[in-house]
Amino acid sequence: MQVLTENILTTTIRQRPADSYKGTYGRVTLIGGNRNFGGAIIMASAAAVYAGAGLVTTITDASNQSSLHARLPEAMFADIQDFTQTRTLIRHADVVVLGPGLGTDTAALTTLKQAFQAITPEQHVILDGSAITLVAEQHLPLPQAHIIFTPHQMEWQRLSGLKIAAQTPAANKQAAATIGGIVVVKSHRTQIYTPTNAYENPLGTPAQATGGMGDTLAGMIGGFVAQFADSSAAVCAAVYSHSAIAELLAQQQYVVLPSQIITELPHFMKVHEHKDV
Amino acid sequence: MQVLTENILTTTIRQRPADSYKGTYGRVTLIGGNRNFGGAIIMASAAAVYAGAGLVTTITDASNQSSLHARLPEAMFADIQDFTQTRTLIRHADVVVLGPGLGTDTAALTTLKQAFQAITPEQHVILDGSAITLVAEQHLPLPQAHIIFTPHQMEWQRLSGLKIAAQTPAANKQAAATIGGIVVVKSHRTQIYTPTNAYENPLGTPAQATGGMGDTLAGMIGGFVAQFADSSAAVCAAVYSHSAIAELLAQQQYVVLPSQIITELPHFMKVHEHKDV
Amino acid sequence: MQVLTENILTTTIRQRPADSYKGTYGRVTLIGGNRNFGGAIIMASAAAVYAGAGLVTTITDASNQSSLHARLPEAMFADIQDFTQTRTLIRHADVVVLGPGLGTDTAALTTLKQAFQAITPEQHVILDGSAITLVAEQHLPLPQAHIIFTPHQMEWQRLSGLKIAAQTPAANKQAAATIGGIVVVKSHRTQIYTPTNAYENPLGTPAQATGGMGDTLAGMIGGFVAQFADSSAAVCAAVYSHSAIAELLAQQQYVVLPSQIITELPHFMKVHEHKDV
Amino acid sequence: MQVLTENILTTTIRQRPADSYKGTYGRVTLIGGNRNFGGAIIMASAAAVYAGAGLVTTITDASNQSSLHARLPEAMFADIQDFTQTRTLIRHADVVVLGPGLGTDTAALTTLKQAFQAITPEQHVILDGSAITLVAEQHLPLPQAHIIFTPHQMEWQRLSGLKIAAQTPAANKQAAATIGGIVVVKSHRTQIYTPTNAYENPLGTPAQATGGMGDTLAGMIGGFVAQFADSSAAVCAAVYSHSAIAELLAQQQYVVLPSQIITELPHFMKVHEHKDV
Repeated sequence: MQVLTENILTTTIRQRPADSYKGTYGRVTLIGGNRNFGGAIIMASAAAVYAGAGLVTTITDASNQSSLHARLPEAMFADIQDFTQTRTLIRHADVVVLGPGLGTDTAALTTLKQAFQAITPEQHVILDGSAITLVAEQHLPLPQAHIIFTPHQMEWQRLSGLKIAAQTPAANKQAAATIGGIVVVKSHRTQIYTPTNAYENPLGTPAQATGGMGDTLAGMIGGFVAQFADSSAAVCAAVYSHSAIAELLAQQQYVVLPSQIITELPHFMKVHEHKDV
Repeated sequence: MQVLTENILTTTIRQRPADSYKGTYGRVTLIGGNRNFGGAIIMASAAAVYAGAGLVTTITDASNQSSLHARLPEAMFADIQDFTQTRTLIRHADVVVLGPGLGTDTAALTTLKQAFQAITPEQHVILDGSAITLVAEQHLPLPQAHIIFTPHQMEWQRLSGLKIAAQTPAANKQAAATIGGIVVVKSHRTQIYTPTNAYENPLGTPAQATGGMGDTLAGMIGGFVAQFADSSAAVCAAVYSHSAIAELLAQQQYVVLPSQIITELPHFMKVHEHKDV
Repeated sequence: MQVLTENILTTTIRQRPADSYKGTYGRVTLIGGNRNFGGAIIMASAAAVYAGAGLVTTITDASNQSSLHARLPEAMFADIQDFTQTRTLIRHADVVVLGPGLGTDTAALTTLKQAFQAITPEQHVILDGSAITLVAEQHLPLPQAHIIFTPHQMEWQRLSGLKIAAQTPAANKQAAATIGGIVVVKSHRTQIYTPTNAYENPLGTPAQATGGMGDTLAGMIGGFVAQFADSSAAVCAAVYSHSAIAELLAQQQYVVLPSQIITELPHFMKVHEHKDV
Repeated sequence: MQVLTENILTTTIRQRPADSYKGTYGRVTLIGGNRNFGGAIIMASAAAVYAGAGLVTTITDASNQSSLHARLPEAMFADIQDFTQTRTLIRHADVVVLGPGLGTDTAALTTLKQAFQAITPEQHVILDGSAITLVAEQHLPLPQAHIIFTPHQMEWQRLSGLKIAAQTPAANKQAAATIGGIVVVKSHRTQIYTPTNAYENPLGTPAQATGGMGDTLAGMIGGFVAQFADSSAAVCAAVYSHSAIAELLAQQQYVVLPSQIITELPHFMKVHEHKDV
């Protein structure tokens, strides 16, 4: 288990090449936000935009269109019920974030199955929150793609079959290898399992223990993976940044809100980008 | 009548334990906001989130969904007309805030009765604004729970039968004991009656005399009670913080808006949290 | 024609009495904002709230409910089509602001007529924008009340019959006396005609020449009149403050937006409130 | 090819004349924003307002009304489906911005054709994004007016027939002359072709490579052209300002969001306005 250091930031967050354009920084499509949990997909989408993703599209319940654009005009909107359109949007994405605020009802299950059908092998797919629960409970076959799971410990139990007490690094490593892809087990000290390695995030503050933090992390991972070639490093850098920003803000705040982490992201990434000598 | 001091903050606002998660800081469910008074439940919900509650759900009129998420993506939404869902959400709450912007029409009365049926004895329930008026005017039997009333003087008259001129500390104390629970009588100098004690808030500024202040206080009390074990102390600390922040802002402002108090809350609580030696 | 000075602020903006409550600072009800001009009534309402009015209610098209609360949860909402409710809200108001974004179609005319029926003699009524045009073009009899007109020069032409070139102080004074009430003729150097006097505002910057400035001034006048006993002084202080804040902001900005004036208002009023020796 | 310098700002951004009013700074009507791309027209509209346009009207899909006013109460709204109203609004405009978020479906085509019919020869028309694609693909005859095209390189290929590799200054110049009007070819180093000259923007940062930047530039051009008599200079100054602000913000941020450029605009223009000696 390798403990992450600030080094993961400077080695991952590259200086942007001068002659680049939106496409250089990737298309991220996020799917989630039913009528109850619209805030979750709004925060995930904002995290992707503020992380620097080139183009961000949010597929969500129609009732979330107004609040999405009131907070984040930079994101495009699509109606989660219009599968013809969402299929195209998924196909054109470099990264798909699936799950924030999706819910676990039959409509969510249908959305998830349809999304899985549209996903192609070269894509990066972040499975978060209720998408993980649905995969685990419905025994859904995963699409062929570069999948990144972001479960908290209870979701990881559902997905891996490992009870929380049994979630040792060795057991997690083996379970992650069996499932395939990258697994981010979120907890007090988040762990990241890649095909070749295991990392622990030494940062994190109890000021972060508030609703929406996981949705924000999922969106940040989407934004980082869209921009940085080494997706394992991108995931590690996103996890580390999320906690590092929270720790900075927690010096002045009793609780740190997800929206505040998002706002701080462009500045934090600038401070920690790779410096050419 | 004990006069509150800054001491109530440092003894109540504990340093957050390192190994904690959202559940540690409580689930707060707020119910209110009809089509006219959506702002009230938005402010109450934001106050609960910014106070540090772990998970916040807002049950309100469907027409308030967009504005809620445009201001506060951190809160979850539920339709006040969907009692099947709201019953579940009430059941899973640690703290229920009932009343901001609820109104006093028959729909409000139905909501209140249904909520009372769902409440369980171990829960903390803040009854605010029109919920108090409805309880008083309709002689509604109160549910068994830890109830905190937050009437202004006229609502207290309705609930206690004491005319404003007759609301002496002794009379209030007796009336509060008869009704049960904790009573916060809001005025120029707010008083708090707990089963064992009576407190006066020495702070408060006329710059606070503007719409939405009471809704904000109700949400703050919800957030504090969700986090701090001694609920009498939590109520006192919330009342004191609300006025202390207003006084700070009033040094620079002719009027202090509820939204500004909410924004300042995480910083204020950090400054005044308990410091281990 | 008396030229206003900063003195109008310190003599009008009283220090708030310690033992006061929302009612002390007045109920302001604003009516306007059709489907096209929702922003106008939102800005007017925000100006009233940030000026310190005790309670603010916004009667507007239903399609403006979400954006109103997304920007200003402190205001209450009522549907402009529900005359039963709006009549009650008008009756309970101390100050009524009629016109920002109301439009001039038949629906607007109906609203205006119904509002006039509900208005009572002791109320202060600010007639702004299209309300003035409708009154002039439809020869509507004015309700008995303390009316404040806030026309720009073309609207003043419609109301007074004076062509812009003929709008000399003497002619304006006579026309204002004939019409009755207080008249604020908005221009490069705004003039104010009260029953006993005429004032000129020496302030104002071309950076203010942008949409929404008049709506914001109407809301500020509403907020000032609700709070300060001498309504002529309140109108003068609102006009002067509006321009003074714009001049301050214009030192750093090429254009000054109405929303920025609103945000600055509580701080400006604090700096210029009456100081007891 | 003349390289732009800061000089384009001080020679173009005039000091505002003291005795001026909203009409002095022009009426800008923006058309775009279907149900998917509401954010695009919101950003373009905000850019026009913050650039100092006198009056801004946004013609867009009805589903964007709330988010428009939640972010920008200063803009008026009209329903893109109500052609009777939009025709009048186009007729009364000094500048029309056509295209941000319009889409390329049949509804978009109908809107574009109807707008073209309403446009009059003395108007300035900015054609952006999908409006350019539709013109190119549908071989739409252009209305007689002062047209400014703002294509990125692929849209310029569609409009001019020049493949990106063949888009040399000489070829671009000739194509622009054939098409008529002013052409802004957006890229790493944006080029501007006027009837008499060609300019290159030396500024720009990869931090700008994010969704919504083009929509924001289109709105800024609209705002500048509405205010400054020399429209070629106005276009150059808008392009230069857009990149200069982005470079300033990019000193502190890894990615610069369109909304942040808009917020900074009034201050930037003040610093760079023409100074009388």
